[in-house]
Amino acid sequence: MEYRKIKDEDDHVVASDIESVKGKSHTVASSNIAMATLGVGSGERVNWKRKGVVTCALTILTSSQAILIVWSKRAGKYEYSVTTANFLVETLKCALSFLALTRIWKNEGVTDDNRLSTTYDEVKVFPIPAALYLFKNLLQYYIFAYVDAPGYQILKNLNIISTGVLYRIILKKKLSEIQWAGFILLCCGCTTAQLNSNSDRVLQTSLPGWIMAIVMALLSGFAGVYTEAIIKKRPSRNINVQNFWLYVFGMAFNAIAIVIQDFDAVANKGFFHGYSFITVLMILNHALSGIAVSMVMKYADNIVKVYSTSVAMLLTAVVSVFLFNFHLSLAFFLGSTVVSVSVYLHSAGKLR
Amino acid sequence: MEYRKIKDEDDHVVASDIESVKGKSHTVASSNIAMATLGVGSGERVNWKRKGVVTCALTILTSSQAILIVWSKRAGKYEYSVTTANFLVETLKCALSFLALTRIWKNEGVTDDNRLSTTYDEVKVFPIPAALYLFKNLLQYYIFAYVDAPGYQILKNLNIISTGVLYRIILKKKLSEIQWAGFILLCCGCTTAQLNSNSDRVLQTSLPGWIMAIVMALLSGFAGVYTEAIIKKRPSRNINVQNFWLYVFGMAFNAIAIVIQDFDAVANKGFFHGYSFITVLMILNHALSGIAVSMVMKYADNIVKVYSTSVAMLLTAVVSVFLFNFHLSLAFFLGSTVVSVSVYLHSAGKLR
Repeated sequence: MEYRKIKDEDDHVVASDIESVKGKSHTVASSNIAMATLGVGSGERVNWKRKGVVTCALTILTSSQAILIVWSKRAGKYEYSVTTANFLVETLKCALSFLALTRIWKNEGVTDDNRLSTTYDEVKVFPIPAALYLFKNLLQYYIFAYVDAPGYQILKNLNIISTGVLYRIILKKKLSEIQWAGFILLCCGCTTAQLNSNSDRVLQTSLPGWIMAIVMALLSGFAGVYTEAIIKKRPSRNINVQNFWLYVFGMAFNAIAIVIQDFDAVANKGFFHGYSFITVLMILNHALSGIAVSMVMKYADNIVKVYSTSVAMLLTAVVSVFLFNFHLSLAFFLGSTVVSVSVYLHSAGKLR
Repeated sequence: MEYRKIKDEDDHVVASDIESVKGKSHTVASSNIAMATLGVGSGERVNWKRKGVVTCALTILTSSQAILIVWSKRAGKYEYSVTTANFLVETLKCALSFLALTRIWKNEGVTDDNRLSTTYDEVKVFPIPAALYLFKNLLQYYIFAYVDAPGYQILKNLNIISTGVLYRIILKKKLSEIQWAGFILLCCGCTTAQLNSNSDRVLQTSLPGWIMAIVMALLSGFAGVYTEAIIKKRPSRNINVQNFWLYVFGMAFNAIAIVIQDFDAVANKGFFHGYSFITVLMILNHALSGIAVSMVMKYADNIVKVYSTSVAMLLTAVVSVFLFNFHLSLAFFLGSTVVSVSVYLHSAGKLR
């Protein structure tokens, strides 16, 4: 079914820090030394650089993700189970986190901060984001009784607002009024950029449809903000350990999703039915995007993540002009301009 | 022809201060006494109140103006000459300025500031705005070879940007970066609110069409900013005298427009051919809007004028929902939100 091909990047907010897998742990170590040697000023510069790099990585990976989806649609429909793909993404991220840890153990030895063993007190909150996503994905099957797929894409922009509100309430971090203005504009700009001649149908959505859309936005926003809270609660704890446990629960809850949603298809046609080269590429891309999201959560925050994925959406459209001969609409230009101004306002409106 | 029914509010930027005609000169006088008695703080409050009142008046008059246009379209087509209507608007404003002056002369006596006689040095710049509008209106006849009427409505939003740029260059008044961001958003928001399924055609406008649209936006912006410069150059000079002379030239240039554009129609069918009750109402409304524009120029500036007429455009649409059973599009909601945020940014971004 068409709607099962809608891959939500939010599913992969629980992500892995693959930095050390790629042999960059040395770089990070030197950065830390540089920070200690040159003092806070330099440390702040390193932090800013790292924040910039992970944000760009997330933007590029998210854009290519959307392009892969377009590519797979043009290449024909693949009737694979999205739940099995999600499970494999979680498994891949979990494996990469573990690989990263083995490298760290070899280089730095096992310490309190990077040991895999955990306590009930630490691990008890880890299933929550995965459970929220499972619940949201199950709701996604029912919302299509009220809105069509393009309408759902438009309603998904409510995530931007819900993330901002929950970020303020749960993480107690303040945005300035100018930054709030920017955030409202980000939501308007993204929606404007997606407008087409059928978009007005979304206004006819019935009350249950609106309620479901708002609940889904809240679930998605809450899962993102909660993941940031978990990752940042223990700053000294190694990110790969935190990710490992997050992904273990991600795998478990996605296994439940397979049983609930795709048991018959998997039992009759097999786990890998309908898989293709593009499916594999998409799973790889989602795992890497997840890693980038995790890094953004660690070095920046949910607000940066939302901006990053929104800009990625616009980049995708521009790249698609060259790749697939897409035509950009006037609405796209207007929406992109509003999003650009919004990015400026977020930076100009920083609280001193 | 359809495009001749497009009445540009900018034609009436040269406007009259009817305040004293309506017997409010006493109120203004008491305000001035209050200012003198209570000191600058109170004077500033009076200025702000006056600025608010004239801005609201302009917004309401501009909205009702657009509603009259819709009403006249629904009531059937009126084949009156727009140039004769423009001429009558200028004449009415000129008469109202003169009436206001006679009242002032009776109450306050003739002074250097309110005498009608003028010098070449003062009057030499007065024909410029009227000439610019004439030139712009003539161009308007040719641009329809390149864009259709709805496309022209969208391109007219370039006026917002041109007014901002020329306001900065000619009047040398600074906007803060946040206010510039707001101004770009105002342009995007207004355009978004007007989007419909055919709007994308405007992107296919050929280069000559774009050049004409930009030239027209510059002419319109320049005329508005130049009028503000004229009115504000001699602060002590009575506004009604300044308006009187502006409108005298407005009448003269509109007489030229009648000869150029509608000579045959007027000669064969008469000056008032095709006039109806609605035409009279529209002329009255345009004259009053012109008065409001003049007051905004005097007590505020071109930027406030642009915000005021943009918000009026949105109000019109909301009122039309009740009056004409219009349906508001998703694009309208998005555009209105962007415009609202833009208004907030203009106020929040004030330079200290």
